[in-house]
Amino acid sequence: MLYTPPLARLVEELSKLPGVGPKTAQRLAFHLLRVPPEEARSLAQAIVEAREKISYCRRCFNFAEGDLCEYCADTRRDPALVCVVERPQDIVAVERTGEFRGLYHVLGGAISPIDGIGPEELRIRELLDRVRKDAVREVIIATNPRVEGEATAMYLANLLKPLGVRATRIASGLPVGGDLEYADEVTLGRALKGRHEL
Amino acid sequence: MLYTPPLARLVEELSKLPGVGPKTAQRLAFHLLRVPPEEARSLAQAIVEAREKISYCRRCFNFAEGDLCEYCADTRRDPALVCVVERPQDIVAVERTGEFRGLYHVLGGAISPIDGIGPEELRIRELLDRVRKDAVREVIIATNPRVEGEATAMYLANLLKPLGVRATRIASGLPVGGDLEYADEVTLGRALKGRHEL
Repeated sequence: MLYTPPLARLVEELSKLPGVGPKTAQRLAFHLLRVPPEEARSLAQAIVEAREKISYCRRCFNFAEGDLCEYCADTRRDPALVCVVERPQDIVAVERTGEFRGLYHVLGGAISPIDGIGPEELRIRELLDRVRKDAVREVIIATNPRVEGEATAMYLANLLKPLGVRATRIASGLPVGGDLEYADEVTLGRALKGRHEL
Repeated sequence: MLYTPPLARLVEELSKLPGVGPKTAQRLAFHLLRVPPEEARSLAQAIVEAREKISYCRRCFNFAEGDLCEYCADTRRDPALVCVVERPQDIVAVERTGEFRGLYHVLGGAISPIDGIGPEELRIRELLDRVRKDAVREVIIATNPRVEGEATAMYLANLLKPLGVRATRIASGLPVGGDLEYADEVTLGRALKGRHEL
């Protein structure tokens, strides 16, 4: 027995976290045993509290403390402009740009038959309902630019267009600060196709 | 505000962990919001329980659930052979070898004047007391093979020898599976000095 039982349990629980293998779990566990007890307790409380207080926004399915998330509750934002993302963390990424003042819609993933995720598993019906009810003008589809995200974007666009709403897709191309030499051919091909006048 | 307050607090607490930056903290936080609530609670409980149940072994200063750690409490181990390490996690590393059947002594670090750690900050007096009382035959000094660990090893050897106890040091050399081509010159120099008959 390498660890005393409560330590073994802590290592085991920590290694369930994504990207945390047995070595990292051990390092985190020994760290938590060394810090002041308040600090360890504080982390434990933050975990419990987050789970108790946070649920889903009933409109956009972002994480929310109350009935609506902070974006849906913000009346200064434009409810006729909706950005569709796969997961709540994608909202954080879009918000960091400071470029978007509309609302969001979290699908809960992307269509991926290989993982058993079809359109019914995603919050697509709810998106269509919103588009109809909230007089949405444009839906920006910001699913990840991978096979699943692209397929989901195409699928959504086909459903949205008959409703008379603009369906747009975020651009693919070279990252800012990137290097043509090191760009993969698919990304560079996209960048060429998506060229615009100067 | 990028995160709702309980989520912001969770991200902040997670980013206090070693090796966890803001991006990783966010990933872990969103993971903890997505898993079944029991799984999140289970991690929180493991942290609290580990802190409540685990303290220090009164003999070797390893982490222990009771008065003595599992090694000190194990009567099949040889109390006359003591392996000195810097931190409790070093014991795990030594145990993994399956080569050692003696007891341990955790110094709590290594002598490092630049960090304000002198011999008084380490559990050296307690080691000398053990050597005298428990009729220790050999002390294997397994501090890390860095400047601080080497200095600590020399310091300890000078204190131990007058007590008539063998003070030995773990070998430095090329790691098994290593490559001469890629070995640094200090390590290879040590490997040459530490050569033995075949």
